[in-house]
Amino acid sequence: MAKKLLPSKSEQPSEWYTTLVQLADLADYGPAKGTMILKPYGYALWEAVQAKMNPMIKERGVGNAYFPLLIPMSLLEKEAEHVEGFAPELAVVTHGGGEELEEKLAVRPTSETIMYHSYAKWIQSYRDLPLQMNQWNNVVRWEKRTMLFLRTSEFLWQEGHTAHATHEEAVDTQEWAMDMYAKTYRELLAMDGYVGYKSNSERFAGADNTLSFEALMPSGKALQACTSHDLGQNFSKAQGISFLDQNGQQQNVWQTSWGFSTRSLGGLILAHGDDNGLVLPPRMAPTQVIVVPVRGEQPVMDYCQRIVDALKGAGVRADLDHRDDESFGYKVNKWEVKGVPLAAKIGMKEVEAGVVTLKARFGGEERQISLDSLATDVPEWLEALQEAMLTGQTAYLHENTRNVSSYDEFKATLKEHKGFIEVYWNDDPEAEKRIKDETKASSRCRLENDGTTGVDFVTGEPANERWIFAQSY
Amino acid sequence: MAKKLLPSKSEQPSEWYTTLVQLADLADYGPAKGTMILKPYGYALWEAVQAKMNPMIKERGVGNAYFPLLIPMSLLEKEAEHVEGFAPELAVVTHGGGEELEEKLAVRPTSETIMYHSYAKWIQSYRDLPLQMNQWNNVVRWEKRTMLFLRTSEFLWQEGHTAHATHEEAVDTQEWAMDMYAKTYRELLAMDGYVGYKSNSERFAGADNTLSFEALMPSGKALQACTSHDLGQNFSKAQGISFLDQNGQQQNVWQTSWGFSTRSLGGLILAHGDDNGLVLPPRMAPTQVIVVPVRGEQPVMDYCQRIVDALKGAGVRADLDHRDDESFGYKVNKWEVKGVPLAAKIGMKEVEAGVVTLKARFGGEERQISLDSLATDVPEWLEALQEAMLTGQTAYLHENTRNVSSYDEFKATLKEHKGFIEVYWNDDPEAEKRIKDETKASSRCRLENDGTTGVDFVTGEPANERWIFAQSY
Repeated sequence: MAKKLLPSKSEQPSEWYTTLVQLADLADYGPAKGTMILKPYGYALWEAVQAKMNPMIKERGVGNAYFPLLIPMSLLEKEAEHVEGFAPELAVVTHGGGEELEEKLAVRPTSETIMYHSYAKWIQSYRDLPLQMNQWNNVVRWEKRTMLFLRTSEFLWQEGHTAHATHEEAVDTQEWAMDMYAKTYRELLAMDGYVGYKSNSERFAGADNTLSFEALMPSGKALQACTSHDLGQNFSKAQGISFLDQNGQQQNVWQTSWGFSTRSLGGLILAHGDDNGLVLPPRMAPTQVIVVPVRGEQPVMDYCQRIVDALKGAGVRADLDHRDDESFGYKVNKWEVKGVPLAAKIGMKEVEAGVVTLKARFGGEERQISLDSLATDVPEWLEALQEAMLTGQTAYLHENTRNVSSYDEFKATLKEHKGFIEVYWNDDPEAEKRIKDETKASSRCRLENDGTTGVDFVTGEPANERWIFAQSY
Repeated sequence: MAKKLLPSKSEQPSEWYTTLVQLADLADYGPAKGTMILKPYGYALWEAVQAKMNPMIKERGVGNAYFPLLIPMSLLEKEAEHVEGFAPELAVVTHGGGEELEEKLAVRPTSETIMYHSYAKWIQSYRDLPLQMNQWNNVVRWEKRTMLFLRTSEFLWQEGHTAHATHEEAVDTQEWAMDMYAKTYRELLAMDGYVGYKSNSERFAGADNTLSFEALMPSGKALQACTSHDLGQNFSKAQGISFLDQNGQQQNVWQTSWGFSTRSLGGLILAHGDDNGLVLPPRMAPTQVIVVPVRGEQPVMDYCQRIVDALKGAGVRADLDHRDDESFGYKVNKWEVKGVPLAAKIGMKEVEAGVVTLKARFGGEERQISLDSLATDVPEWLEALQEAMLTGQTAYLHENTRNVSSYDEFKATLKEHKGFIEVYWNDDPEAEKRIKDETKASSRCRLENDGTTGVDFVTGEPANERWIFAQSY
């Protein structure tokens, strides 16, 4: 837990990341290649995401459900683009109960096909619509290289799946889901990014289009932070999901799916962490205030307990570190690495003065607050820190988004600066392939149309769509 | 949703069960053999279990975590009894990412081996103990015959796993876990049962002993409702989990594991359901009061909304059924099948009198309550129903537990009566095998020693341990 174990974030970013994830007790490697263990401190961050998102999902009328992990291969093959996209990443069960299976089963990489198999059965009439379900579950997508949270063979996520009578309603749901995600990123994870549609070659396998939240990491690389898909009638035609409408006509449903995963926690670590460790946004932090006694004298311990009680009474997640086998310095360091928003260091001086000396993990400000004012001042301070963290991220995002108008300029900018590049572009898969091969950058998303026009940065032809490009995780 | 679709519970118990689970929208079959889909209404019951248990788990200092789904076969094979117990039930992944794997991976049937692989790494010193983690996850155990909730190839559960410096502390944890489970069954699911140790042949594969909660179903069969294991040092020796104690000695840890699954929901349905459908204990019910308008006139709808608002204000989960494509009778029937504890049927008569006519699903009592008294009377009534349901179950359990003293009497009682049989018995695997072969009954658990003595019902030899026997699910 010693600070010196943590490499510099700017100089050795990937060593810093891997070391921090383990030092802060967030996660560890599992025994099978590419797998990850979410330790309690890391899992608590995921529980914070669930607590934020679940009420919004339920409020929308989407019910939590659970579908089987194992998908018959024949089901997965029903939507051609979909299976083509996922086949290379599948884990396949060939034996069960001591026997070779007649039909192989895929460990779900996502649940479109298995859920829609039931949707086809459950949906008969317009009265059965909309059908809206969400799952909090685990999915497996085989990965050769592992990066804890960001790229693992198995990850946790929620996947929402809805079926509607009209395309309009489906699009409204797709947008609602992305709004919910953007809210979660901004209000809870204190992260910012661009929201927009993916290009033809980057959209989800089986979708008509995909909305994405694209965050900019300190390395200058983009993180595709979550996605929300308009599936059109692709799956409903492939799997025969149809309903009798109010005019007695048989119609195919319009569908959406949308997912938010533990990958987001990788983004959180990258976005906010520093050379001293993790920095957690207060709303997300399992412990918001840690109280560390300088030494374990009884009056100090009693006073620490009064602090914790006062804070808990004000709804603050406060804890007292009363381990007696660690030194004061070690403890302070430990909680710094764990990114706890406020640390109170309490000695006889504080006891006698009736004050609490607090230091903020983000920004480093130190304040003395009287015991009596804790219940009002600390919640306000925590909220201010939460906002300041988001403000910093938003500024970083905009400062590192550069406009370029030609491919040469694009390549030069990629070399000189880190960050996002904004261009006019006519979405063209062949051009995108060439750009990716030559620069490792790809389109991240299409910005909202602002009525301006320019020239396609690759072809020089007129273009009115602005796109964000970047290298990505 | 029509009542007439539901077979009689007593005459066609298995048809009743399967039909009800689907009619009440709790669950459905998945496409792969033995798998189940938990629909939102069924999943909400599982969320109620989580909401009850999670605070108790955290209060104990056990952190929620997540370990990988896929377990290398070599790990699973480390504890001999364990792998022997689970091998016949494994689903095995042989291919990943388009290639045949060097080492096959088992889809977790339980997580002892994969968790303890990390425990061995994380535990070095007595300061690292106790190490206590819990997972809410999915497990796969191959099943040939499916019974929704009760016997499925995949199910959801929580599995707690702790490591301790002393055997005493491990036993205390094992008992704490079973207390938590019994509390959950009694206080939330309104179910009762016997708690005790499993016999040598019925205990968990790899455990020194197993505590079980054995509930009695209306069919007269036992349901092993959840278990908590004293793993002794079996896994810690097999996987090398050791620590340096305070005297500088290297020691193996003492371990426990304990699990509570969606099987419990099968028990809930069986225990409380009747010929008209599900009967949910109020604390468990996603909707506690359903308000059904006789017709959709505006004054009635407004009044219904006032009822819902008053109840919600009092913390009651109340909903208004405002579908306009279903008849009043259909709706009443639908909510009866879904087991909603109280149904309010509201027409102009109620609006004019300022009263609410409510009918209890359990017991069938009808009451008229004035709108003004709803907020106090309904929560009290719901609590009384919750208690009455448990009282009924406890009475049923004791009424159907019969003492016998010889094997002949045992066999006769099995034929004449349904229920539990209490005997003196000296736990003997060979005798148990013979009893099972001849009667299909097995030992369920050992009751707490009450100081009495008697004779072993099989051998006639002196015995001072009392056991419960029954046929089981």
